[in-house]
Amino acid sequence: MISAGIVGGSGYAGGELLRLLIQHPEVEVKIATSKQHAGENVSKVHPNLKGLTDLAFSSETPLDASAKVDVLFLAVPHGSSADITPDIVDQGARVIDLSADFRLKDPEAYPVWYGWNHPAPDLLGKFVYGMPELHREEIRNSRYVAVPGCIASSSIYSLAPLAGGNYIDGTAIIDAKIGSSGSGNKPSASTHFSERYNSVRIYSPVGHRHIGEIEQELSFVAGKKISATLSAHSVNMVRGILTTSSVMTGSEVEEPELWKAYRSFYRNEPFIRFIMDRNGLYRYPDPKIAVGSNFADLGFAVDPHVRRIVAIGAIDNLIKGTAGNALQSMNLMFGLKETEALMSAPMRLV
Amino acid sequence: MISAGIVGGSGYAGGELLRLLIQHPEVEVKIATSKQHAGENVSKVHPNLKGLTDLAFSSETPLDASAKVDVLFLAVPHGSSADITPDIVDQGARVIDLSADFRLKDPEAYPVWYGWNHPAPDLLGKFVYGMPELHREEIRNSRYVAVPGCIASSSIYSLAPLAGGNYIDGTAIIDAKIGSSGSGNKPSASTHFSERYNSVRIYSPVGHRHIGEIEQELSFVAGKKISATLSAHSVNMVRGILTTSSVMTGSEVEEPELWKAYRSFYRNEPFIRFIMDRNGLYRYPDPKIAVGSNFADLGFAVDPHVRRIVAIGAIDNLIKGTAGNALQSMNLMFGLKETEALMSAPMRLV
Amino acid sequence: MISAGIVGGSGYAGGELLRLLIQHPEVEVKIATSKQHAGENVSKVHPNLKGLTDLAFSSETPLDASAKVDVLFLAVPHGSSADITPDIVDQGARVIDLSADFRLKDPEAYPVWYGWNHPAPDLLGKFVYGMPELHREEIRNSRYVAVPGCIASSSIYSLAPLAGGNYIDGTAIIDAKIGSSGSGNKPSASTHFSERYNSVRIYSPVGHRHIGEIEQELSFVAGKKISATLSAHSVNMVRGILTTSSVMTGSEVEEPELWKAYRSFYRNEPFIRFIMDRNGLYRYPDPKIAVGSNFADLGFAVDPHVRRIVAIGAIDNLIKGTAGNALQSMNLMFGLKETEALMSAPMRLV
Amino acid sequence: MISAGIVGGSGYAGGELLRLLIQHPEVEVKIATSKQHAGENVSKVHPNLKGLTDLAFSSETPLDASAKVDVLFLAVPHGSSADITPDIVDQGARVIDLSADFRLKDPEAYPVWYGWNHPAPDLLGKFVYGMPELHREEIRNSRYVAVPGCIASSSIYSLAPLAGGNYIDGTAIIDAKIGSSGSGNKPSASTHFSERYNSVRIYSPVGHRHIGEIEQELSFVAGKKISATLSAHSVNMVRGILTTSSVMTGSEVEEPELWKAYRSFYRNEPFIRFIMDRNGLYRYPDPKIAVGSNFADLGFAVDPHVRRIVAIGAIDNLIKGTAGNALQSMNLMFGLKETEALMSAPMRLV
Repeated sequence: MISAGIVGGSGYAGGELLRLLIQHPEVEVKIATSKQHAGENVSKVHPNLKGLTDLAFSSETPLDASAKVDVLFLAVPHGSSADITPDIVDQGARVIDLSADFRLKDPEAYPVWYGWNHPAPDLLGKFVYGMPELHREEIRNSRYVAVPGCIASSSIYSLAPLAGGNYIDGTAIIDAKIGSSGSGNKPSASTHFSERYNSVRIYSPVGHRHIGEIEQELSFVAGKKISATLSAHSVNMVRGILTTSSVMTGSEVEEPELWKAYRSFYRNEPFIRFIMDRNGLYRYPDPKIAVGSNFADLGFAVDPHVRRIVAIGAIDNLIKGTAGNALQSMNLMFGLKETEALMSAPMRLV
Repeated sequence: MISAGIVGGSGYAGGELLRLLIQHPEVEVKIATSKQHAGENVSKVHPNLKGLTDLAFSSETPLDASAKVDVLFLAVPHGSSADITPDIVDQGARVIDLSADFRLKDPEAYPVWYGWNHPAPDLLGKFVYGMPELHREEIRNSRYVAVPGCIASSSIYSLAPLAGGNYIDGTAIIDAKIGSSGSGNKPSASTHFSERYNSVRIYSPVGHRHIGEIEQELSFVAGKKISATLSAHSVNMVRGILTTSSVMTGSEVEEPELWKAYRSFYRNEPFIRFIMDRNGLYRYPDPKIAVGSNFADLGFAVDPHVRRIVAIGAIDNLIKGTAGNALQSMNLMFGLKETEALMSAPMRLV
Repeated sequence: MISAGIVGGSGYAGGELLRLLIQHPEVEVKIATSKQHAGENVSKVHPNLKGLTDLAFSSETPLDASAKVDVLFLAVPHGSSADITPDIVDQGARVIDLSADFRLKDPEAYPVWYGWNHPAPDLLGKFVYGMPELHREEIRNSRYVAVPGCIASSSIYSLAPLAGGNYIDGTAIIDAKIGSSGSGNKPSASTHFSERYNSVRIYSPVGHRHIGEIEQELSFVAGKKISATLSAHSVNMVRGILTTSSVMTGSEVEEPELWKAYRSFYRNEPFIRFIMDRNGLYRYPDPKIAVGSNFADLGFAVDPHVRRIVAIGAIDNLIKGTAGNALQSMNLMFGLKETEALMSAPMRLV
Repeated sequence: MISAGIVGGSGYAGGELLRLLIQHPEVEVKIATSKQHAGENVSKVHPNLKGLTDLAFSSETPLDASAKVDVLFLAVPHGSSADITPDIVDQGARVIDLSADFRLKDPEAYPVWYGWNHPAPDLLGKFVYGMPELHREEIRNSRYVAVPGCIASSSIYSLAPLAGGNYIDGTAIIDAKIGSSGSGNKPSASTHFSERYNSVRIYSPVGHRHIGEIEQELSFVAGKKISATLSAHSVNMVRGILTTSSVMTGSEVEEPELWKAYRSFYRNEPFIRFIMDRNGLYRYPDPKIAVGSNFADLGFAVDPHVRRIVAIGAIDNLIKGTAGNALQSMNLMFGLKETEALMSAPMRLV
C-alpha cells in the first residue's frame, strides 16, 4: 500500500486527485492539507465525496507532510511550489507537482512566460515532464514529476505526431476552448455565473503561459526547434478542453500518410483514442465524450484549400490535463499497472 | 461470472447500463441487441465507450437472447416489454425490466396512467418493484424485477420516510425538474437544442404517468392509501433530477423529529446520503453532486409559515433513476455484494 | 421631456432600467449614480450599451440627485432605501423604488419577512405597489411607487385570477425557478460559474421574503386573507423566472370556467399573454419566449387526479419582474402611453 | 410605407427578420410565406411574437408574392433561391436574398464551395454583396442584394482592415465558434439537446463554404488576392459567433498602427464597435454583449511571441450575421435612415 499526501487538497485539481486516489486499490491517502479548511471533512469541501471518505483536511506544512508519506502531490498555486519543493526534495520524498514550477527545463524561460526568476533552477533538471506517452521511462526512473499544463496537454498530444513527422512548417497556431474549472475555485467578476454563462471569451489571445512548455515538448519530439503560439478562450461549460491547431505544411500531405504518423507515434498507448469517423455525431474529438476519463482524444483533417493540417485534441482538463496524468505518473513511478484507477468509463451524456 | 444480455442497448438507458456492466468484475455482457444498429460496434453508438469494449450490437430476438444469458435486461419502450416478456418468463430466464410495464401491481392502473390494458396481468404479481431500499428481501428472492421510473425514484426516496412516519396529510405535491436525457435519444422539435436550451418547460403539469407508482409505493410504506400528484419540468441540463415535494401536515412538526424519521428509515443504506448543511453551497440535495453516481441525495425543510414539510431528492436519472437500481437489483438477485460496480465517486464538477 | 435619475445604476436591475430608459423617446436620463463606478462611463460598466449612450456615473447623493430630476429611481439594496427615502420625499421628488422597502403595507410584516423594523412606517401608506394590472389608477395618481419583487410578480400574476375567483382553498404552494441575474452582480462562491452551472439549487425551500407581498396582494384581490408559501430554486440560466403554483380547490373545476376567470381578470392588458396551446412546443409559459420583453406569460392546468389547479407564470425577472414594471409605472405617473418603450419584441431564441 | 414580403418566414432567419420588420415604423409586412405553416398565425410558429402581430403565413409562390410588395426577402435554403430568383427579377421586384446563391461573383466558385453549377450565372453580376460597410453606395443603387453569410460576416468585419492595410502575409486562418441557431430549426441527431449540450464540436475543420465569400471580399478590399481558410465549431449556446483569426505578418507591427488602421477603415460606421479594454470583463469582443443587436464588435491583439495579429469579431449570427444586414441594406435601398429599426440596445445578460 502506497501512502500518499496532497498539499492543497481543497481546490479543484486537488479535489479531483483526491477523487481518483480514494478509488485506487493500492493507495492510502494519509494526508490532505488545506490552510483554509483544516479540520473540516474532505466531503464538506468536496460534497460529491460524501459517503466515500472520512478523511479530514489537516494543517501540516508541506515539509512535515512529506515526511509521512511515500509520495507527495503538490496542488498549490504556480510560484508557490518552487519555494517549498527544495526542502522537500532534500528530505527525500517523492514529489508530483501539479503546478507549472518545474515543467520548463530552461530557467530563462520562467521570466519570459511566468514573469519571475526561478528560485531553484538546479532542481529543474531533476524533474521529468509528466507526460507518460512522451517520457515513460524517465518517469519510471524518476522521483520528481512536473505534471503538464492542461491546455498544453491537449496541444502537445495532438501536435506531437506532426512534430515527430516533420510536418510543422513555420508556427503551429493553437486555438483553445476551455471550461471554467480551469480557472480554479476562487470567485471573481470573470467567473460570476451571470457574466460567464453564454459567453465565448478570448481571455488570452496572445502570450499564454503554456506556450513555453508546448514549444519545449514539441521541439523535444521533433529534435529541432518548433515554433508555436496559442489563443485561449473560455466557453460555456465547466470541464473539458478542445484544441484546434493549424499547421501549414510546406508540401502536399495526404490523409493516409498522417494516419500512419499518428498511429505509429501512439502505438499501444492505453489512453490515446483516435476519434475519426466518416459519419455519426462524433467525427472528431469532442470534450463531451472525454470528460470524466483519462483519455486524450485525437483527430486531424487535411485542408484541401491551402496546405494546412488541422490537429484536434480533446481532454478532461482536470483528469488527463491534471490529476490523471499525475496519477498515471505515480503508477509508473511505483511500478504499478499504469492504468490502475484510471480506466473508469466516461459517461456518454454530461 | 454472470452472463448478461441487454435488449435495446442503443438508447440512453441501455447505454448507461452497458457502461456500468462492462466495469462489473463479475459480469460478462454477452449480448446487446439493437434493431437499428445491429452489427455496429457498441462504441460507435456510444462513443464514450471507445477503447473500453469490443462488443457489437446483435439482432437477436429478446427470446433468443434470453436463452443465452443468466439475466436479461430489457431497455425497451414502455408497452413493448409487456408483449415480449411472457415468453421470456416461460422460458425461465431472469428478467430485469427497465420499462414501466411491470411496475404497477394493479392491472386497473395501466389504463389510468398509460392508456392501455395490460396484456399480461397475471405476471404483475411476479415482478418486484426494483427499489432495494424498500424491497431488498423480495428482490433477493425474485427472478423478475421492474425497475422504478426516474422521477418516481426521486419522489419516493424523499417522501417514503414521511409516508412511513404518517406525516402526509392530504396530497403530496411533487414538483420535478429533469434533464433532457430523460426523454431519450430520438430527435424532435421539443429536444432541438435551439428550442430546449435556456428553457424551463413544464411539459407535464398534471397527469404524469409516474404518479401511479409513487402512490403505490408510498401507500405500501404507509400501510394506507397515500395521495400524490406531480408537475414535471424539463430544465437546462442533460442529466439529473431534483424533486421538491410539499406535504401539508395536520400538526406542528419539528426538525429533529424528522431527522430521526429519515435516519431510521434509511439506516445503513449504502446509497442514501443526507445533504443537509447549515452553511456552504450544498445545503440541500442538488443533482450537480449526485450525477455520475448511484446515490439518492435527500434533505428536507420545515416551513415555519404554514404547516408544511418540503422533501427534497436529487438523483442521476440514468443511474439511481434507471440503470443503477437495475444493477443493484441484479447484485442482490445473484447474491453479489450489493454495491459492486456502483460505488464509483461522482465528479464534483460537471 | 421627463428628466430621470437612477440611484445605484451599476447593478443588474439599474443597468436594465438604464437600457430601457435610454430608448424611451420622452425621457432624458440626467443622472445615474454609482459609488463604486463614479466617473466611469455607463458603457464601461454595462458594455452592451457601448455606442448607445455617453452618460457617465456620478457620485451625487440620492438627495442631491432627487433635486435635479422629475423622477428618481432607486436601485439600491433592500434596507437602504428605507433610510434615504424619507428625506427625498420631504423634498418633493417622485420616487420609484425597486427595493423591497415600501412594498409591504403592514409595518409588522418587515420584521417577519426581512428581519428588521421599518424606520419609516408612516411612509408605507404613501407608496403604491407598482403592479399596473392591479393598481393602475392608484399608480396614475401617486408620486411614490414600490416596484414588486420578481418572484412575487410571476406568482401574483398567475394566481391573482384564482384569488379573485375564490378558487384558493388552503395554501397556494409556489415552486419558483429563477436565473442567476436575480441574485445580483456580486461574485460569491454560490454564483461561481463552476458551482452554479448545471445545478438545480433549492436556495430557499421555506421562508422566502416574497411570501409577504404575495399574500398581501392576493388577499387584496380576494378581499380576504389568502395563505401562500414558496420554495425557490436557482436553475441553469441567467434571465427568467417560471413559477408553478399548486392550488387545491374545494370542489371540481372545469377548464372553460378558469379560462373565463383569467380572461376577464386581465381584459385588455397590454402585457399579459396567455400561453395555452394544445400542441406545439410552447403549450405553457416558458421564460425562453418571455425573456427580453415586458410580458407576463400565463397559463394553467386542471389536475384530473386530485382537486388541484396548476397556475403557471413566466417573466423576465429584470424586466416585468423589475425594471419593466418600474417604467410602466412611470409611464402611468406621467400620463404617457403606458406601453411606451416597453413593446420591443423579445427574441425567439436566446 | 414600404410593403415587404418574406418567402420562408417560418425558419429562424425568417423569424428574426419578421421580428425586426414588424417593429420598423416605415414597413408593412404584407406577406410571409411558409409551405409547412400556411394558414397558421406567425405567432403560433414564433411564439415570442404573440401579442405583437396578427399576420398569418400564406402559401403564395415566391413569384406571386413578389408582385404584391415593394421588396421581397428570400429566406430559403441555399440552392433554392437560384432557381426562383430569375423569374422574380424579370418581373421587376426588388430582392434581398438571405441565401448564399448570389453572394459569389464568380460562377466557377459555386461548384468549388457549394458543389453545384449555378443555374443563373448572368444574375450574379446584378447582385450586390449586402455588407453596407463595404458596399454602401452599390447597395443604395441596387435592386438586388445578397446578404452575407454569418460566419463570413464576423470574419470579414474583423479582417477587412488588415486586408486593406496590407497586413495579411500568407493565409488568414479563421477559427469560428457559433451557436446552434446557425444550423436552423430542423431537428436532427446533431442538434438533439442531449448530444449538443456541453459539446465543443468541430463540425467543419476544413472546406467550409463561407471561405469563398471571405476570400472574395477580403481580396476586394485588399485590391489583390487574399488567401483565407476556416475551421468552424459549434459551442454550447444558441445565438452568437466569435471568430478568432490569425494573420502572420511579414514584419513587426505595433498596436497603435493597427488601431489607426481599424479606426480609419470604419470611420462613422453606426454598427461597428471596438471592444478593446485594458481591464474589466469585456476586454475583447464577446457574443455575450453583441447578441440581440446589429453591432459587429471588433478587436485585435498583437502577438509578441511570433509575428502574428489576432483579429477578433463577435456578432449575433441572426442579426448582423443575417436579418440585420438584410434590413440595413433595405434601409439603404429605399433611402431611409440606415439605422432605422436596428438600434435597439442589446441586453447585458442573456
